[in-house]
Amino acid sequence: MTGTITVYFEAGAEGDWLIERIAPVIGESLPAAQRLSMSEAMARDHRPIWRLRGVVSNARYSTAAELAKLAAVSPPLGRPEAAAAALIPIRKSETWWAMGQDERRAIFEETSRHIARSMKHLPAVARRLHHSRDLGDPFDFLTWFEYAPQYAPAFEALVTELRATPEWQYVEREVDVRLVRR
Amino acid sequence: MTGTITVYFEAGAEGDWLIERIAPVIGESLPAAQRLSMSEAMARDHRPIWRLRGVVSNARYSTAAELAKLAAVSPPLGRPEAAAAALIPIRKSETWWAMGQDERRAIFEETSRHIARSMKHLPAVARRLHHSRDLGDPFDFLTWFEYAPQYAPAFEALVTELRATPEWQYVEREVDVRLVRR
Repeated sequence: MTGTITVYFEAGAEGDWLIERIAPVIGESLPAAQRLSMSEAMARDHRPIWRLRGVVSNARYSTAAELAKLAAVSPPLGRPEAAAAALIPIRKSETWWAMGQDERRAIFEETSRHIARSMKHLPAVARRLHHSRDLGDPFDFLTWFEYAPQYAPAFEALVTELRATPEWQYVEREVDVRLVRR
Repeated sequence: MTGTITVYFEAGAEGDWLIERIAPVIGESLPAAQRLSMSEAMARDHRPIWRLRGVVSNARYSTAAELAKLAAVSPPLGRPEAAAAALIPIRKSETWWAMGQDERRAIFEETSRHIARSMKHLPAVARRLHHSRDLGDPFDFLTWFEYAPQYAPAFEALVTELRATPEWQYVEREVDVRLVRR
C-alpha cells in the first residue's frame, strides 16, 4: 500500500551468501558470521547472529534528471555474473541530520559527488539502498552492492574514493561486509 | 542512539485529549473514538480502537535558512493555553514519491509555499511532524498541531489554504482529527 519494501539481512549459518570478511571502517564492527541471507521476510526458523533491516524507500537527494540517468544504466540485482557483493551499513552523525536539506545535498553531491562517482561504475555495480534511520535502528542506511568478482578492484577504488570525501566526515559508524554467492 | 523518537497516537477510552471530531478529507476516515493519547511509549494496558505511530526525524525539504527561521519562532508543545489540537494523518501518492528531490521541493515550497504559509501562523500554532512512510504504515506523515481555542478560525484558514495548493494534488488520503485537552 505504501510503496516501500522492508528488507532483512540475517547473518548466521544460513543464506545464499558466504561472508568473506567483516571489517570495521569507522567505529564498532559487527560480529563474525558464516553466511548472510537477504530477504523481504524475517526468517523465523533460526536465530541469526545479527539481523539488520532497512526500507527501500524514496530518493532523498537525487534530482529528477539524476534519477532518470541512474534508471537508464542501473542493472538489476541477481545477475548470474554478479557473484560478489558488499553490504555497507552506515550511521551518520547528529550534526549531519540537523543540517538543512540544501546543506546535506550540497555536501552529498556538489562537494562529494556521491552520485557522479557512483555513476561511473554503472552498469558494472548493481546497488540498492535501504533506509533504517526512521526505524530507530543502529544504522541509518544499509547499502547493498553486487558485481562480478573481476570488478572487485574497481569497486574497491570507488569505496576508497567515497571515504575520502567531505560527506564521510559525517559518518560515525561504518562496517564493510564482503560476500560471495556460493 | 539514532536521534529519532517514535511517537504513538492511540484512540480509545483513555488519553489526555478529548476527540471532538474525526473527518475524512480525502479517502477513508478513521474509526470514531472518544479520547486520544500521544506518547513515546505504546500503552500496553488497553486495546485502542486505532493506533498510529510516527517518527520525529530529520527535515526533508527545509533549507538551513528556513530551519533557523522556524526554530526562532516555533513554540514548544504543551503550552497551557494551547488546549486545542489537530492530528492530520496524510498519505501521498506513488507519483509524489517517485519524483526527484528537486521536483518535490519545488512543489512543496516554491509553488505551494508550505513553509511560508505555515510560518505566518507562528508562534500561535505549535507543530510536530511524525514520519510513518518508512514504517510501512498506512499514512506517510502524522502532523500534530496545538493552539489556543480562540485561534481555531485562523488555523482553519491555514489548512483550507494548504489543501488548495498544487502539493495537495498528490495527497491520496487525509483525515482531520480535532481535539481539546480536557
